[in-house]
Amino acid sequence: MNKGVLIIISGPSGSGKGTVVKALPPEEGYALSISVTTRAPREGEVDGRDYFFRTEEEFARMRDNDELLEHILFVGHNYGTPKFYMEQKINEGKNVVLEIEVNGALQVKEKYPDSVLVFLIPPTWDELKRRLIGRGTEDLNTIERRIKRAQDEITLIEQYDYLVINDEVENAVDRIGTIIAAEQLKPKRSMNAINLFKGAVN
Amino acid sequence: MNKGVLIIISGPSGSGKGTVVKALPPEEGYALSISVTTRAPREGEVDGRDYFFRTEEEFARMRDNDELLEHILFVGHNYGTPKFYMEQKINEGKNVVLEIEVNGALQVKEKYPDSVLVFLIPPTWDELKRRLIGRGTEDLNTIERRIKRAQDEITLIEQYDYLVINDEVENAVDRIGTIIAAEQLKPKRSMNAINLFKGAVN
Repeated sequence: MNKGVLIIISGPSGSGKGTVVKALPPEEGYALSISVTTRAPREGEVDGRDYFFRTEEEFARMRDNDELLEHILFVGHNYGTPKFYMEQKINEGKNVVLEIEVNGALQVKEKYPDSVLVFLIPPTWDELKRRLIGRGTEDLNTIERRIKRAQDEITLIEQYDYLVINDEVENAVDRIGTIIAAEQLKPKRSMNAINLFKGAVN
Repeated sequence: MNKGVLIIISGPSGSGKGTVVKALPPEEGYALSISVTTRAPREGEVDGRDYFFRTEEEFARMRDNDELLEHILFVGHNYGTPKFYMEQKINEGKNVVLEIEVNGALQVKEKYPDSVLVFLIPPTWDELKRRLIGRGTEDLNTIERRIKRAQDEITLIEQYDYLVINDEVENAVDRIGTIIAAEQLKPKRSMNAINLFKGAVN
């Protein structure tokens, strides 16, 4: 059995990352990455399912021991992506999905070059704006700040492995499936097959 | 429209390159590369369909002007892969297929880094031997030389972009289709979409 792939789904706010990630079928071997956080569990949240809940001391130890692929401080709480869970799932053959903003994505790629970076964009710029405004949850200032940020983020696209246009969620899901199938054909992911083949030479 | 991809199908003698290449459906946008040669046309061979037939002087000029992706001398005749035909087809959106032995494949990749290198292998080493022997056209010395050569070639696999196991021809064809679909999602091949998106920012 081949190992799974760490697939990082990123892209500007309004690209539809969250919706696409939720639509990736678990029966096709996808497993969502689970974050470590220092914030308290909310009603109904389960440790090891929604988050790994850790104390500030435990979090600091993980960070200092290089056990996190990336981490951020967000409104007073620490969040991070633990390596151990990703590695465990990948060894089980699962494709681990990490949804993350653009800067975090590039950090993870640096720490784990075998990961696959996917940049998600809506089909047009107007559609991106429409989605941001359509949410109705943010004031115009916030929307303008997000648009400005998306303009900056799009310039980083050449550092990504793949560009997926999110015109329809099911198309984006299909494209991500194609990417994973092709990635599994890279020699570095097929060393088992190669070594078996080489071994049989003797 | 995206440009096509130059896809190089290579692998040891007995890997089934020729059969797989013939099975790639033209209606899915594949176009076979056509070689330049200095040998005389055989009965029924058509210039520009089977080969581009050229004089020694014309061939030398093409080679010296760097108009060939690779070239070899084989039993007194020159053969080469012309850039112009590949570029024309790729600009038409065709996926140009080049079937070539391993050393030639690596030469082409060096000259044209946007090409996609596929290493084809049979499912097992025993199957490779079986296929070489089963041809019944070569003496045991030749077969042993080919097996030795395959052992050397397999060590170059890490320089390839993809490894395709040719267990069944239709599986190999499907895998090559997946590779091309994923390659078309790489940012470097989607600059049109990216520039359109960026342009729409203003």
